[in-house]
Amino acid sequence: MLIALLTDFGYKDGFVGTVKGVIKSINPSVDIIDISHEISSFNIIEGALILKASFKYFPPGTIFTVVVDPGVGTDRKTIIAKTKNYFFVAPDNGILSPILEEEKPEKIILIQNNKFTLKADNNTFHGRDIFAPVSAYLSKGIDINEFGNELDNYTKLEFPKPRKHQNKIEGQILFFDKFGNGITNIKNIKGFKKGYVRNIPIKKLINAFLEGEKESLNLIKGSFEFYEIIVPLGNAKEKFNLKEGDRVVIYEA
Amino acid sequence: MLIALLTDFGYKDGFVGTVKGVIKSINPSVDIIDISHEISSFNIIEGALILKASFKYFPPGTIFTVVVDPGVGTDRKTIIAKTKNYFFVAPDNGILSPILEEEKPEKIILIQNNKFTLKADNNTFHGRDIFAPVSAYLSKGIDINEFGNELDNYTKLEFPKPRKHQNKIEGQILFFDKFGNGITNIKNIKGFKKGYVRNIPIKKLINAFLEGEKESLNLIKGSFEFYEIIVPLGNAKEKFNLKEGDRVVIYEA
Amino acid sequence: MLIALLTDFGYKDGFVGTVKGVIKSINPSVDIIDISHEISSFNIIEGALILKASFKYFPPGTIFTVVVDPGVGTDRKTIIAKTKNYFFVAPDNGILSPILEEEKPEKIILIQNNKFTLKADNNTFHGRDIFAPVSAYLSKGIDINEFGNELDNYTKLEFPKPRKHQNKIEGQILFFDKFGNGITNIKNIKGFKKGYVRNIPIKKLINAFLEGEKESLNLIKGSFEFYEIIVPLGNAKEKFNLKEGDRVVIYEA
Repeated sequence: MLIALLTDFGYKDGFVGTVKGVIKSINPSVDIIDISHEISSFNIIEGALILKASFKYFPPGTIFTVVVDPGVGTDRKTIIAKTKNYFFVAPDNGILSPILEEEKPEKIILIQNNKFTLKADNNTFHGRDIFAPVSAYLSKGIDINEFGNELDNYTKLEFPKPRKHQNKIEGQILFFDKFGNGITNIKNIKGFKKGYVRNIPIKKLINAFLEGEKESLNLIKGSFEFYEIIVPLGNAKEKFNLKEGDRVVIYEA
Repeated sequence: MLIALLTDFGYKDGFVGTVKGVIKSINPSVDIIDISHEISSFNIIEGALILKASFKYFPPGTIFTVVVDPGVGTDRKTIIAKTKNYFFVAPDNGILSPILEEEKPEKIILIQNNKFTLKADNNTFHGRDIFAPVSAYLSKGIDINEFGNELDNYTKLEFPKPRKHQNKIEGQILFFDKFGNGITNIKNIKGFKKGYVRNIPIKKLINAFLEGEKESLNLIKGSFEFYEIIVPLGNAKEKFNLKEGDRVVIYEA
Repeated sequence: MLIALLTDFGYKDGFVGTVKGVIKSINPSVDIIDISHEISSFNIIEGALILKASFKYFPPGTIFTVVVDPGVGTDRKTIIAKTKNYFFVAPDNGILSPILEEEKPEKIILIQNNKFTLKADNNTFHGRDIFAPVSAYLSKGIDINEFGNELDNYTKLEFPKPRKHQNKIEGQILFFDKFGNGITNIKNIKGFKKGYVRNIPIKKLINAFLEGEKESLNLIKGSFEFYEIIVPLGNAKEKFNLKEGDRVVIYEA
């Protein structure tokens, strides 16, 4: 069995190691893989998109433990979502909703049974005290119904959609990857006439980074399934001082 | 068997990969888990506190390989400490002392036997040449007495303790976590009347981050078992320009 | 079997997790180890040197998946190199050449067989679509000849070599490690009389970091097998504002 982790814990403070220690204490034979622990602090949209681009490459049966959880310690719910192929253990704050739109949930369980969680004298680390042990027990084959009652709904994420008017598509930059490429929320384009980020021209629609016009913005279909704004062998974000939320306009050919 | 690593090596230079290559060459079936490799360079206190908050969540028998080692290549000792539940392989520079206060060592061994270490033509990477192979041989069940002679002592870390006078507790910020929360050295408070970091007021003692007063400093019992200085959904360190060592004063109710 | 990964993907975007998901989907029992994912974007020389310092510490049979790939999506070749002890799966852009000089390739295969790669509707993530599945199938024992035809050559990397004139050696700083130590391209020195980085004096040739003159530049044989420029308990790069490419001159005694 495989547990895949996505959090905003960072790599410095030992939080991830502690989570893995808890998991291995309960199920020593489970495999653990890191998707990311550098989601920007509390950034549910970024976490959701990175998880969505990655999850379907994992083997069926994988348990995804997803902890971007600004509401830790409040009465926000913690849930398990079972889809045809996977389990997702997460706070019910919308982070799963882009995935559950694509991969319909067969069952959503509210985590209630404290037989499967750790007691703690603080209330700040549910990754360690709830999400890790629940994931570990799931990986041991504990039936999902043992963890709590079924819910008939889950929190949906407000997600900025592009607008289309005739041949003009208006979207925005959602976030930047490590290379400074700007991931937009635009998924489909029929041909490329011209385009802009703010008022900076996008020169070409390309299929490989090196085909782009040098020192300029170019557009490429990227691995998040969205179009991305890139500079060949450069960092688009830094070179043009781009920001999350920057308006992207594409005119189709 | 499980080996858990904590170092200040960072993730860029391949040092951690090399350490794991050495371990897997000696014991291919051992599981390796990273606690942290982003301990601030040479910062023994930070490493000690992060390890202390994490180790007890690992399964009994875990071997902790701990390399924050500014004295590498000098005559500082390298040791194995065996406690009731765990093994710790580390330089004898005090990094284990907060743990060994809590989890009494049954035996301290000086690493001497070069049958269990690698030869190298440089003297700068004992993580690779000493700590990794010793940990790997330990994980294969080699008796701890094979590695060298017993020591009857180990280096203690000078550790800043808070002072208490009547209802006033004076402590300090030890370090910051990834979220910019300031971990103090204050462990016990009986009620909260008021408090300050330098001259900045602490508004509330809270149980969940979101209960705190917005844009302000608040106090919460955190997962390092110390009280932490936080800003809800914010970064206390950056917002108030806090520093390690900043004085924290709490008046109990 | 063991697959070791070295990329410039960073840890934030989930790229590494996706690569591992692909590998585990094909071969659930393979062990995966990270060497580094923080190679500077597109920096083939840095990646080559970090891989070269690390690979020989891995068990025989290890498959190294190496993705620093500025030419992704162009017609640059993708190859498997088999040496006596290891497999290397990489773009043919020179990143393997320092290793293949030392560890002669027995066979170079051009990756052609799309039975062992993933189909994708974008052309930007060959780590996921080519390098990961090819490595996973190799780890399952698929014969190397199944992946494509043999090549009789591979791309060599232009690599800056030091120059020697009588007792004067002129080299340069290749890159900096996490501690701010400057890794030079100088491998052999017969005694040390004096030295400079730009016009900043190097005070001593030392065997342990703490033997160095404080607050000053010192020279030590490091774990990359090259001499390194260091400040004891300090960060040479930041303290003296050193840069990649800075000229290093050593006068032998």
